[in-house]
Amino acid sequence: MVFEQMWRDLAPVGRSAATGGYHRQPWTAVDAELRAWFREEAERRGLAVEQDPLGNLVAWWRPAGTEGARPVLTGSHLDSVADGGAYDGPLGVVSALAAVDLLRERGTVPTRPVGVAVFVEEEGSRFGLACLGSRLATGQATWADVRHRRDAAGTALEDALAAADLGDDPAATGPDGLRWGWLADVEAFVELHVEQGRGLVDLGAPVGVAAGIWPHGRWRLDVTGRADHAGTTRMEDRADPVLTFAMTALAASKQARLAGQRATVGRVEVHPGAANAVPSRVSAWLDARADTEEALAQLVAGIERQARDRAARDGTALEVTAESVSPRIAFDADLAQRLAAGHERGGWPVLWTQAGHDAGVLAAAGVPSAMLFVRNPTGVSHSPEEHAEVPDCLAGVEALADALARLAA
Amino acid sequence: MVFEQMWRDLAPVGRSAATGGYHRQPWTAVDAELRAWFREEAERRGLAVEQDPLGNLVAWWRPAGTEGARPVLTGSHLDSVADGGAYDGPLGVVSALAAVDLLRERGTVPTRPVGVAVFVEEEGSRFGLACLGSRLATGQATWADVRHRRDAAGTALEDALAAADLGDDPAATGPDGLRWGWLADVEAFVELHVEQGRGLVDLGAPVGVAAGIWPHGRWRLDVTGRADHAGTTRMEDRADPVLTFAMTALAASKQARLAGQRATVGRVEVHPGAANAVPSRVSAWLDARADTEEALAQLVAGIERQARDRAARDGTALEVTAESVSPRIAFDADLAQRLAAGHERGGWPVLWTQAGHDAGVLAAAGVPSAMLFVRNPTGVSHSPEEHAEVPDCLAGVEALADALARLAA
Repeated sequence: MVFEQMWRDLAPVGRSAATGGYHRQPWTAVDAELRAWFREEAERRGLAVEQDPLGNLVAWWRPAGTEGARPVLTGSHLDSVADGGAYDGPLGVVSALAAVDLLRERGTVPTRPVGVAVFVEEEGSRFGLACLGSRLATGQATWADVRHRRDAAGTALEDALAAADLGDDPAATGPDGLRWGWLADVEAFVELHVEQGRGLVDLGAPVGVAAGIWPHGRWRLDVTGRADHAGTTRMEDRADPVLTFAMTALAASKQARLAGQRATVGRVEVHPGAANAVPSRVSAWLDARADTEEALAQLVAGIERQARDRAARDGTALEVTAESVSPRIAFDADLAQRLAAGHERGGWPVLWTQAGHDAGVLAAAGVPSAMLFVRNPTGVSHSPEEHAEVPDCLAGVEALADALARLAA
Repeated sequence: MVFEQMWRDLAPVGRSAATGGYHRQPWTAVDAELRAWFREEAERRGLAVEQDPLGNLVAWWRPAGTEGARPVLTGSHLDSVADGGAYDGPLGVVSALAAVDLLRERGTVPTRPVGVAVFVEEEGSRFGLACLGSRLATGQATWADVRHRRDAAGTALEDALAAADLGDDPAATGPDGLRWGWLADVEAFVELHVEQGRGLVDLGAPVGVAAGIWPHGRWRLDVTGRADHAGTTRMEDRADPVLTFAMTALAASKQARLAGQRATVGRVEVHPGAANAVPSRVSAWLDARADTEEALAQLVAGIERQARDRAARDGTALEVTAESVSPRIAFDADLAQRLAAGHERGGWPVLWTQAGHDAGVLAAAGVPSAMLFVRNPTGVSHSPEEHAEVPDCLAGVEALADALARLAA
């Protein structure tokens, strides 16, 4: 079957033989392979591909008579977190192409153009800003805001982009040139995504519809201490930033657990990183999420308070920088209801998610947006163990085709 | 003055403009500059330089008539920890060359050959094994033991060495070819070093003599958890290795503080390092030191016990690997007494150190060894702030010249 064939073609791209996890960072050789794969699949279907200077892609199905009609957009992203899973992102792109196939098999001819989009750097795993591609496409970030961001190797975004040689120079497009003006006229955006928790497992449903996204954000914690010799410096005489960091990581986890929220430290850098020296600095990234914006602010403030108390004891200095904060997103309730209720098998459940998505960014920009989730048997995501069963994926393709038929026909 | 000129020549080599700290890792371009500097200084003094296939260097002063006499060795190392200070290592090499100058100015003609040695990778900052050069020169490690060690970039030692192109291939020298056979006949080794604590400040002395070195070692802690999405995975459902690590770092610091010992975590790697994913693994290096070998074993066992308790709570797995453990070293007491007592100003104090040194490795190999320390006004070391005042350095040169005169004349 075509869905499974696309899945097999993608499987080896950016896969680590050691872990089975994926390394699909944007503007890399692996990214170029993913991009080529997408263009080939679009060409096979006769879909015309547009690419913006950042590398966002749309493959258009424009049957005769759809000229001038407001388009319906679907798709997702192909990038992964470092050592991530196969499904987060690609499932939405593969399913969108398969849904086009299914609509054609059914003989459905849309009265609106249907676009399959691939947004770049959704994970923010290279330049630290999640949904970079959709933020720029919607004008929620500009090229000037992001061009100087650096990856872990010190490469600036503008240089990474130039090296990827996609064709156009974002700097040459003018201040607003990365914005997709036509997005204002989009009838709806529907993103299909693997679920990243066990909500659908508990509900016994292969597919669900998103109600909205928890507010969430990323804060950088810089703890500065004093480098010293690990042997000769008495413990009492040290200003060790590792201790301040360690206490903060434990406090963040405990506060989030007690409040039913989320706090994670997934990236840590210890400088200079010599085993026989007290470090001079620790930089750590706090990812925090809560069900309301007020609760999120309280969670972060509480963690920062405990970190400052500990820094005072350790003789270290703490700096907290908000790198990105996403508000609570409630998806278009009517649209969600139409997607959930209209199914022949009796309707899909509607549920909240704690994960950010391009659909959330488009919704924040005023594009009527919706999401479909496909069941994840373990709930594990951002991990090589991330998984979805084929029958559930195919139910997802059907649900997406139904949604597109309803919106575009 | 010659001492200060040598110091000025070395000052820019491997210095970070951002921090003022030094990055003098072995078998790098910076290392080649240091090596060239040493050869030039030796040549200027008419000292013949020998280099072994690993890059250890000795510059020989062999006045007529010293043939066949047991040599006296001095020197230290030129490498630094990452972002380290200027004095740790280079002070001993510069002072050794200056001591040769001073003996010549005084008209002292040694009756034994005097060698100024530079040992490679004393800090172990690149390949993780401290005193790599002296361990191989004394046969306490072999080429087969170390050739496959990798640096943080994944480069194997044998490849780094081949890339440095020093001339000889260690593999071609045979199993024992890196051992300095003549070390067995050395009359004494005297290493001068900046003090790395405040012992001499408290005693009001510019120079001191080492009694011995605390036992110390490096243990690698690998904590394995389960990668997961930072938003959608409930806190209760995680196996987060950062928490196990954080608790362990705090426990290590507290236990060492209460016992008057040392425990440091200076290097930490969090995998895969994505801000929006629960990490799958944390590797951390524990540096621990205590006044007796029994106390050191108890300290490490106590830390490991607390780490295992926490790992059980977190659902993570802990693996502890001893990377290097150095026994307690008591330097030759007679030799130390001769160096300490013989000074015209009334003698230098004798004190213990918590820091490992090449002199400790040579002592463990049976070479009669001694160390001179030069006062460090802040006690700070392995840091850009590491410092010694010029008058104290010059007192060090005099003390070293006195020691060499006593041992070699």
